[in-house]
Amino acid sequence: MSQAERIVRHFQEELDQLKRRLLEMGGLAEEHVRLAIKGLVERDQALTNRVLRGDEPLNTLHIEIDSRCFTLLALHQPMAADLRTIVAAVKINTDLERVGDLAVNISEAATRYATHPPVKKLIDIPRMATIAQSMLRDALDAFVRRDIALAQRVLDEDDRLDDLKTQIFRELLTYMLQDPTTIEPALDLILVSRHLERIGDHATNIAEDVIFIVSARDVRHHAADQTT
Amino acid sequence: MSQAERIVRHFQEELDQLKRRLLEMGGLAEEHVRLAIKGLVERDQALTNRVLRGDEPLNTLHIEIDSRCFTLLALHQPMAADLRTIVAAVKINTDLERVGDLAVNISEAATRYATHPPVKKLIDIPRMATIAQSMLRDALDAFVRRDIALAQRVLDEDDRLDDLKTQIFRELLTYMLQDPTTIEPALDLILVSRHLERIGDHATNIAEDVIFIVSARDVRHHAADQTT
Repeated sequence: MSQAERIVRHFQEELDQLKRRLLEMGGLAEEHVRLAIKGLVERDQALTNRVLRGDEPLNTLHIEIDSRCFTLLALHQPMAADLRTIVAAVKINTDLERVGDLAVNISEAATRYATHPPVKKLIDIPRMATIAQSMLRDALDAFVRRDIALAQRVLDEDDRLDDLKTQIFRELLTYMLQDPTTIEPALDLILVSRHLERIGDHATNIAEDVIFIVSARDVRHHAADQTT
Repeated sequence: MSQAERIVRHFQEELDQLKRRLLEMGGLAEEHVRLAIKGLVERDQALTNRVLRGDEPLNTLHIEIDSRCFTLLALHQPMAADLRTIVAAVKINTDLERVGDLAVNISEAATRYATHPPVKKLIDIPRMATIAQSMLRDALDAFVRRDIALAQRVLDEDDRLDDLKTQIFRELLTYMLQDPTTIEPALDLILVSRHLERIGDHATNIAEDVIFIVSARDVRHHAADQTT
């Protein structure tokens, strides 16, 4: 193997490692969302506290991934598709960190919500959470596999999230108008639905990055061929 | 002037141009926030519509800035401080685009709000907007001037925004509990205060990027010296 081949292979290994780290971070962020919603629904303050106090691993991964991106950019000076992939990784890393923050916001709302009697049985909020989590998972899979069709499906799912948010809002508004004692806890549920909507927005951002990486590669096919 | 000097000078010109574009984008985003709040406070649907229909220039700038960053990374393969500056520019560009989206969200709330009688005279919301706008301006100035002290002041301002948001929430909750007809419009004001809080968060992100660029330069002084 020549020196040049060794450098290319080393670069590809580093890039694969970066992708694995992003998947790991995505898995952690998704798990935090799952726990935050479980804590809210089951009124389980121990679970809620795990989210409130457990953002250290996400923060550590965030810094590590950022630093991997800088190293790859500085040492290998990638071009075309690889350059776009690494810059996208910087953005995706930021999106995933924010998802972790939103899980914390949900758990803060859950802590307040648990101090009131439940407004209603929560059905649509866990449904929103399930959709948002799977959007996140699909967006990251699309990134790793450069799968533009899967990325497009993530964008389509966002409408379902939007519809559920509107439905939740209308239903809770009815409760608030009928019974003022539900106003405070219902407000927290509305906030939770907004946090879930924003998690969907972050998945959408990631999916849009994937489409940019892959379609710019199609358009500038010759340039991309040199590096992939 | 040697060929190498010409390349360095060209790179610096391109970098300055990138910074000017980011300032321009920041100015536009800030103006949209100002108009959105003015439209809300003065119940002026014409102003509100200008924000709702006027995001084209911001979107165009967003794409142009992104493409400038890629070109700089691909053609000049910058190291150390310059590399961090350009990657930060990609992130800041995303933050500013989101600020534009939030101005649209505020105008959507303003449109709904205008269909109800006013809940109260709006004082704290314009105050929040003024703080958020000046945070945004200061964060971008700090980026251009690499001013870590100014960036730190932006981070400190975020607490004032948080306090105002809590105060607005408590006051509106009182209205809602006393008079159910205020529930719907008060909810929109609460959402507006959250949008303004998020604009502050984006200014905070930018300020944190500035601190990272400048302090990493302090820490790894030798590496940074080669490029600045």
